Amino acid sequence: MVDGCPSLLELCEQDIQKDLDRRRPGQSSIVSQRKESDKVQILSGVFEGKTLGTPICMLVWNEDARPDAYEEMKEKFRPSHADYTYQAKFGHRDWQGGGRTSARETVGRVAAGAVAKKLLRDRAGIEVVGWVSGVGEIHCDVDVDSVTQEQVEASVVRCPNPAISAQMIEAIEAARKAGDSLGGVVRCAIRGCPPGLGAPVFDRLEADLAKGVMSLPASKGFEIGSGYAGTKMTGMEHNDEFRMREGKVRTKTNRSGGVQGGISNGETIYISVAFKPTATVMREQETVNVRYEDTTITGRGRHDPCVLPRAVPMVEAMCALVIADHWLRYEAIRPR
Amino acid sequence: MVDGCPSLLELCEQDIQKDLDRRRPGQSSIVSQRKESDKVQILSGVFEGKTLGTPICMLVWNEDARPDAYEEMKEKFRPSHADYTYQAKFGHRDWQGGGRTSARETVGRVAAGAVAKKLLRDRAGIEVVGWVSGVGEIHCDVDVDSVTQEQVEASVVRCPNPAISAQMIEAIEAARKAGDSLGGVVRCAIRGCPPGLGAPVFDRLEADLAKGVMSLPASKGFEIGSGYAGTKMTGMEHNDEFRMREGKVRTKTNRSGGVQGGISNGETIYISVAFKPTATVMREQETVNVRYEDTTITGRGRHDPCVLPRAVPMVEAMCALVIADHWLRYEAIRPR
Amino acid sequence: MVDGCPSLLELCEQDIQKDLDRRRPGQSSIVSQRKESDKVQILSGVFEGKTLGTPICMLVWNEDARPDAYEEMKEKFRPSHADYTYQAKFGHRDWQGGGRTSARETVGRVAAGAVAKKLLRDRAGIEVVGWVSGVGEIHCDVDVDSVTQEQVEASVVRCPNPAISAQMIEAIEAARKAGDSLGGVVRCAIRGCPPGLGAPVFDRLEADLAKGVMSLPASKGFEIGSGYAGTKMTGMEHNDEFRMREGKVRTKTNRSGGVQGGISNGETIYISVAFKPTATVMREQETVNVRYEDTTITGRGRHDPCVLPRAVPMVEAMCALVIADHWLRYEAIRPR
Amino acid sequence: MVDGCPSLLELCEQDIQKDLDRRRPGQSSIVSQRKESDKVQILSGVFEGKTLGTPICMLVWNEDARPDAYEEMKEKFRPSHADYTYQAKFGHRDWQGGGRTSARETVGRVAAGAVAKKLLRDRAGIEVVGWVSGVGEIHCDVDVDSVTQEQVEASVVRCPNPAISAQMIEAIEAARKAGDSLGGVVRCAIRGCPPGLGAPVFDRLEADLAKGVMSLPASKGFEIGSGYAGTKMTGMEHNDEFRMREGKVRTKTNRSGGVQGGISNGETIYISVAFKPTATVMREQETVNVRYEDTTITGRGRHDPCVLPRAVPMVEAMCALVIADHWLRYEAIRPR
Repeated sequence: MVDGCPSLLELCEQDIQKDLDRRRPGQSSIVSQRKESDKVQILSGVFEGKTLGTPICMLVWNEDARPDAYEEMKEKFRPSHADYTYQAKFGHRDWQGGGRTSARETVGRVAAGAVAKKLLRDRAGIEVVGWVSGVGEIHCDVDVDSVTQEQVEASVVRCPNPAISAQMIEAIEAARKAGDSLGGVVRCAIRGCPPGLGAPVFDRLEADLAKGVMSLPASKGFEIGSGYAGTKMTGMEHNDEFRMREGKVRTKTNRSGGVQGGISNGETIYISVAFKPTATVMREQETVNVRYEDTTITGRGRHDPCVLPRAVPMVEAMCALVIADHWLRYEAIRPR
Repeated sequence: MVDGCPSLLELCEQDIQKDLDRRRPGQSSIVSQRKESDKVQILSGVFEGKTLGTPICMLVWNEDARPDAYEEMKEKFRPSHADYTYQAKFGHRDWQGGGRTSARETVGRVAAGAVAKKLLRDRAGIEVVGWVSGVGEIHCDVDVDSVTQEQVEASVVRCPNPAISAQMIEAIEAARKAGDSLGGVVRCAIRGCPPGLGAPVFDRLEADLAKGVMSLPASKGFEIGSGYAGTKMTGMEHNDEFRMREGKVRTKTNRSGGVQGGISNGETIYISVAFKPTATVMREQETVNVRYEDTTITGRGRHDPCVLPRAVPMVEAMCALVIADHWLRYEAIRPR
Repeated sequence: MVDGCPSLLELCEQDIQKDLDRRRPGQSSIVSQRKESDKVQILSGVFEGKTLGTPICMLVWNEDARPDAYEEMKEKFRPSHADYTYQAKFGHRDWQGGGRTSARETVGRVAAGAVAKKLLRDRAGIEVVGWVSGVGEIHCDVDVDSVTQEQVEASVVRCPNPAISAQMIEAIEAARKAGDSLGGVVRCAIRGCPPGLGAPVFDRLEADLAKGVMSLPASKGFEIGSGYAGTKMTGMEHNDEFRMREGKVRTKTNRSGGVQGGISNGETIYISVAFKPTATVMREQETVNVRYEDTTITGRGRHDPCVLPRAVPMVEAMCALVIADHWLRYEAIRPR
Repeated sequence: MVDGCPSLLELCEQDIQKDLDRRRPGQSSIVSQRKESDKVQILSGVFEGKTLGTPICMLVWNEDARPDAYEEMKEKFRPSHADYTYQAKFGHRDWQGGGRTSARETVGRVAAGAVAKKLLRDRAGIEVVGWVSGVGEIHCDVDVDSVTQEQVEASVVRCPNPAISAQMIEAIEAARKAGDSLGGVVRCAIRGCPPGLGAPVFDRLEADLAKGVMSLPASKGFEIGSGYAGTKMTGMEHNDEFRMREGKVRTKTNRSGGVQGGISNGETIYISVAFKPTATVMREQETVNVRYEDTTITGRGRHDPCVLPRAVPMVEAMCALVIADHWLRYEAIRPR
């Protein structure tokens, strides 16, 4: 359910579907082989090919849920999963691998993000591009100003550098064979954002971007601009000096990551998100059962040995939603 | 103004003042020498030493503003400051070093955070402790489960390791002499948090913590638990296995940082925040003026060569506010 | 979609269905004859008969939409309908009688209200009962402390007084035959509410109740307690004196309507809502078309000659949602 | 504290003060004689005579609080006041006549409303005018399209009809002499509002107006357009037919009160608010004390025998705040 999208935006199911296909399980050999077509239906909010300005309801059915594969989870808390914390919070949980505990909830985020991306592209000329910049120990430097979605999508691991992409795929295959899993880093660039989006204090643009992506399953860290590396620079090294270029105020460097004082400055906004290795591994681990006794558990089921390739559209979606929200707020109050 | 604090909490100005004194300029030789007593008055919301349950209004006056020191800023945008972005967003800005552009706004956060800390300590037995874990290239490992505020406060740089603290002070002094500045990292531990705080999707505990601290001036990155280092581990290495200990479900390790599936699991929650080096440096830099012409500017005024020591109570405050909010939400719905 | 419902509440589709059936078209001869079974499916948020604490998604399909019956509305704005204002706001509208312009959106409110009612009844012993107290010129006095839902449901017009109910039905039948329509008044009592729900300033209980019911289609007025009649009394006549009764603080009268200073006082909360006559009438009226020319229009389709009987569960739903929200807020902060 | 006001609005203390003076005690012989100058200081958010776009903090000090006059309230709950409900909710209350229980909190609303009015007038050409249309049994019909603030302010009771105004003053004086109090009705017109403000479902314009004014102390009822009288009309009588006039879509009548389907239609928006008689009366009444024993109380202190004259700027303020909020939302998404 997406509320707040302006009217008269051209929107059809295919606009949503193409991002859902990038998130879908079974899209390549290195992701979960669960069989979900993830076909989206738009139930409301669009009329004659254009948004109505009222809430857009989109529906994707689960097609390949296998509750019986989760029988053991009825009794045991999986390590580094949400089983125990849901039990603690709610006194009750859907142990069948569904509900809010499943990363399938990100279908909704990606669908909503596709609407936000369309709005940003059509109305504001803003583009959101994400990619995998790290898998385990393998890292890839990418130019945030020029990387294209075509380059990213050329690789099943969604790393735009073909050589490094091949190494990443190899590492993921090896982890899978070992019944183990890998983590990594997604980066995302937001280009064409006008100066003026954000807010001075609580709703700083980087704060809302951080909240957005840190609400994704398995995320453990967030950076904007220079991030942690920037803490090791001095002020003289880190500052982005201003220069006029083609009639615009520009910065000579972009360690700020396109945001200064919580507000966009017109440069490319770029962030990174750290994802931990998938918690489900095919090996025995110690755990506790629902009667609060020590026991062991061995992972099963159709899980991703590495969530990174599928996390790219999720990060893009959350960034697009945050930027679209701030763009609309800016439209309301910008100096006219 | 703090809204939402329950009634009957014992609260006095000294509860607030002690944290304001930790944030105050002029508290030591390595911070800004601006002279502000930062004395807080409670104007409403407390009666006969106890909170009323209605909004708590606290007031701190500015005493040492020097608008004339900012005359040059009327004309020029300081690099990596908010001058240009405010101009772009609002078409107008308070160039006198005040308003929302000044990090003095964090007085309010620290005052509010002191209320939240008191609530958490008195009602829920939750403790929030922050410290400086990095200044420039200098890093300090600290045990998140045992470090005390006394150890932290023993050092003006707020690093609990005396030897490393001395190195950090030396580095900051050197940066100041060079007219330059340093960045660094603050870590913060939240101890005694019951399992069950947080939410499954958008308001995950780590998402709200990230938003809270990434709204602080100069912040560039956030980690919870293993953070970016965790991306280089495998699932088998990273997972926190469960064991029963003293009748409680505990994890053998704590790479999750006390949060699983967006919800606290009863272990210590620990996060880190990256702060960039202070943007104001006492050297000439290129910039642009309000008539959109290239020019140069040289920093002046009473600024911190390194914000880290004063950032500790700010990070604690934001963490305490987020945890208090989620603790209250949990009280509303927890299984009874 | 209902968010915020605590876990472990027993809930099944029948709990929802019984209120949907009270709202459903075709339930009697005096309401719209549109054929909708309005069968609800619970898609998420309930597991093994109990709420999970995560959002509850409920789905009701439209079965008898007749877009062709609205062909004329493509061209013309119906008087006192939302056609023109939607066009003005959104530059676009779903002229097929659907989308947000249709009172069918109240299906969602009634479904959500049924969840809120169940929560209030099972957890807090709070009961919500509404009835029709006026149709056109016909008015019925009802005791807010003792009226039962059984008495209300005994009449198709939902007025608990059989004699007056018969007059109301007659009036509605006459209006229908004349191609005209009637308005009226719904009252609603909330009984068993503990003292302490509400807030001192913006979120006063009566303010939130007013917002809730004034968001219903066709509502034009709201009263709590003595309402407009109370403006003609003096303070001595109007004040509710306190007396101890059975160990409880009680009021001797209840002109306050159970709320004082924005907060419940433990007495029955009672409100009224004014509904205008249905805008769709089967007679020719002047109007304007989408090319902004004067024209005329004659109502058609399967509309209610009087919305009052079906408005009862809608008013109950909005009251229950508001009270449930405030009850949960109170649980978070009440003195313990 | 006012957040969300756009930048570059010309604003000075006098813009606020003139409305505070209309709300101030002691302004005439028929209101409370408490001596408060109610002088406002703007502490932040305005620079060089223009709003900065950041929060506007305004301060008004209490000057004539007399806590000792409330000594009896320490022990006893005043009938139809908030003493008992605050005690029930918070377990604690400021019995000294202050805090949130005092209608002095409306100073803040009127100050904020003055900012909203200025924004609406300067940016959108929208005008908000309120008046007293009823005191006790005395009623005054006023043309909502033409009444001016000058006409209203010519009378201390704020009724624009001089003859009826004189009757109202006489009735209030009589009530005061009798130690009793009167209620009444305020009406408010919002003129010049463009079509398109509001929302289809929960945030209907009338719902937000209702919430705004029903959050005022002593309010018991709300109407928009035809209100309760409209429930006695038929659809044919009530509908507002459309006609083109001077190139605009206009309605021939305005029983809708300027809002259709939750959204403004360009006609004058007009509402009414019922206020109960002041609860403080100078006669003995039965009540209960804090030890939960039956007792009596006799009102004392400097109270209004009728709140209506001072309620006019409060109602205007709440209307202006709601309309300004919706106008800004509309600016964000209106078809461009």
